[in-house]
Amino acid sequence: MSYQILTPQTLPEYLLSIPAIRDFFGDDAIEAEEIGDGNLNYVFVVRSAEHPQKSLIVKQAVPYLRCAGEGYALSRERMTFEIRALQGYTCHAPKVYHADEAMSLVAMEHLKDHAILRKGLMEGVRYPLFADQIGDFLAETLFKTSSLYLPSDEKRRLIDRFNANTELCRLTEDFVFTFPYMENETNQIEPQCRAEAEALFKDVEFKRKILGLKYLFMNRTDALLHGDLHTGSIMVNEHETFVIDPEFAFVGPFGFDIGALFANLGSAYISHFYRSGDEAYRAWLLETIRQVWERFEAKFLELWRQTPSSALLTPGYLDAEALEPFRRDFMVEILRQSAGFAGCKMARRVFGIAGVEEIRGLEDPAERKEAMMRALATGRALVMAHDSIDSIDRIVEIVEKA
Amino acid sequence: MSYQILTPQTLPEYLLSIPAIRDFFGDDAIEAEEIGDGNLNYVFVVRSAEHPQKSLIVKQAVPYLRCAGEGYALSRERMTFEIRALQGYTCHAPKVYHADEAMSLVAMEHLKDHAILRKGLMEGVRYPLFADQIGDFLAETLFKTSSLYLPSDEKRRLIDRFNANTELCRLTEDFVFTFPYMENETNQIEPQCRAEAEALFKDVEFKRKILGLKYLFMNRTDALLHGDLHTGSIMVNEHETFVIDPEFAFVGPFGFDIGALFANLGSAYISHFYRSGDEAYRAWLLETIRQVWERFEAKFLELWRQTPSSALLTPGYLDAEALEPFRRDFMVEILRQSAGFAGCKMARRVFGIAGVEEIRGLEDPAERKEAMMRALATGRALVMAHDSIDSIDRIVEIVEKA
Repeated sequence: MSYQILTPQTLPEYLLSIPAIRDFFGDDAIEAEEIGDGNLNYVFVVRSAEHPQKSLIVKQAVPYLRCAGEGYALSRERMTFEIRALQGYTCHAPKVYHADEAMSLVAMEHLKDHAILRKGLMEGVRYPLFADQIGDFLAETLFKTSSLYLPSDEKRRLIDRFNANTELCRLTEDFVFTFPYMENETNQIEPQCRAEAEALFKDVEFKRKILGLKYLFMNRTDALLHGDLHTGSIMVNEHETFVIDPEFAFVGPFGFDIGALFANLGSAYISHFYRSGDEAYRAWLLETIRQVWERFEAKFLELWRQTPSSALLTPGYLDAEALEPFRRDFMVEILRQSAGFAGCKMARRVFGIAGVEEIRGLEDPAERKEAMMRALATGRALVMAHDSIDSIDRIVEIVEKA
Repeated sequence: MSYQILTPQTLPEYLLSIPAIRDFFGDDAIEAEEIGDGNLNYVFVVRSAEHPQKSLIVKQAVPYLRCAGEGYALSRERMTFEIRALQGYTCHAPKVYHADEAMSLVAMEHLKDHAILRKGLMEGVRYPLFADQIGDFLAETLFKTSSLYLPSDEKRRLIDRFNANTELCRLTEDFVFTFPYMENETNQIEPQCRAEAEALFKDVEFKRKILGLKYLFMNRTDALLHGDLHTGSIMVNEHETFVIDPEFAFVGPFGFDIGALFANLGSAYISHFYRSGDEAYRAWLLETIRQVWERFEAKFLELWRQTPSSALLTPGYLDAEALEPFRRDFMVEILRQSAGFAGCKMARRVFGIAGVEEIRGLEDPAERKEAMMRALATGRALVMAHDSIDSIDRIVEIVEKA
């Protein structure tokens, strides 16, 4: 079917032409309801008329930014990359029932009993399995799309499938690595923070380090990244963790997704000083940073040790024991990247276009400013120190000190 | 025209159907002669019957290794990447008159008065302009295909045009970074070197460093590389330098081509201890290594300073003065990569499948063995030291000490 924008009226007929969807709903009539929670895309819940608990989610991209209207063009090909990433995930992602790149549309599992992680963290909810589950997701996804696992030709094919996600990579290059550190019309600087913003814009040592991280972002093809793994791209409950919205997916540096997660947990940590004053919860947030890394590292190494042959490794080249020091250094390099990208991701939220709600939403202006300055100081410290960091303890210590 | 293998008999008719070729030869009749100097491809000289000095070279790839016969399959798509690289070169490469990806064929300038650099160096010839000209070629090619020059979307399109050169990248992964350092049937180990080879195969510290360089080779997209820039891929005379045969072209780490060149100049340096004993010539070879780097670095920085906007740099982000320390560190990083890859390229020639003639061709077995061990020691020293090298002097010193 050639591309057309679907509506709650036209969606059911389209869906019932798909065998996998008919299998899902059996002979039930279905109804579609648009739900307004997509900034970029149209999102629908599709339900059986007879058994409304039988439902799935349909997302369709339009050739503009949904929340800004048709005047703000953004190529709908972003859905192509979201589809390809979702189809590649082997755990902790919604099941895909149907995907149609030509229609920029995907039908997937409806996560009815899950909250957006950012909102849960703002409310002070603990998710006991989250750190381990997201650690597993990161290890599975990053390891199995790297040259440590794939053969050389498959790695090149993977790059081929994501290389054209130019527009969304460009958004990251601009809005994570550039504009938030210079005068730019897209920034959102409160008058009370003007002097601090100007000081940041003159901080050439920091900006040189950011430039190095931006270069890495553009010139490393370690693994398939989610590309925007903040706490708004994760749905959780007590038992389960799901990663959603990978439209920024591309093949980039190992540490970028891990860093995004550290940054958002760090923002939550800072905000709760003001939001709840709950020191036990803040300690849980710090512990979560540590545990995400430890689980990721353990799982990544476990997968690596189980992989005798890959683009990188030819059987017989080095034995298991001789490989261990290489693996150790490799994990430190991923940790350093993660620290650096975490720093960018925290710092860019302070004056850049997209702030995080847990900090920008603080109502008291003095508290809000203080929280922003703490986030900036933490981000800066991570960026400046990242290439000499050698343990997760050091990262936790930097976040804690803020 | 769909693919077919051309012969001296069928080539003229094909060529005269191409307007650019008819323009080149005017109304002259033309004759094609196969010349045997391609290992991989068929190479023809095509001449005007009336004015035989009016000539060009035609190269056609066949779906196997020409020198090994039809039994040794090698996809003819390698010519696609050679064509694309040649068309992208802006200096020090033969002029392309016609290229046909479907026919895996290219017609280009006939370099009649030039020698293969490797042969000239073996004979002790000095090329006074070579270092500067190849330095310019490297700077132009590497800078202008990097994120320091191209906008983000053009860089991704460049990656797209070369990403599928899987087969030849795989050859490098195997024959430069893997097989020469382990037991493998493709190695060529003289009985008199058996003990030394076995010692190398057990040298786990060295092999871990090689593994790190192999990882870099596979996971960096700095710039478009020639991919096989040894002294057999360069044609020279007193006045001119031409880079040929870029069938290994792909987007990879900055230092790979520079390293290949250092390695081959290093091999020539070692071989002349035995070949000519000419210390003044050996000093010229060392000086050439230094001058290639110095010219490359100066030219690369000059181009960079002239480029206000690129994927990496948004105007207004950092001023010229604040960028200089970043540029300095960046050049050191390229130098380190170059030293590491130079080391691999020297070491792999010792026991691996493709030795260099200047060393393997030494007739006296004791001298040959000594030269091989010196090449190995130099390669190993470069690999082990590469990530702390901070000047070209240090590289020259390592080569000199061998």
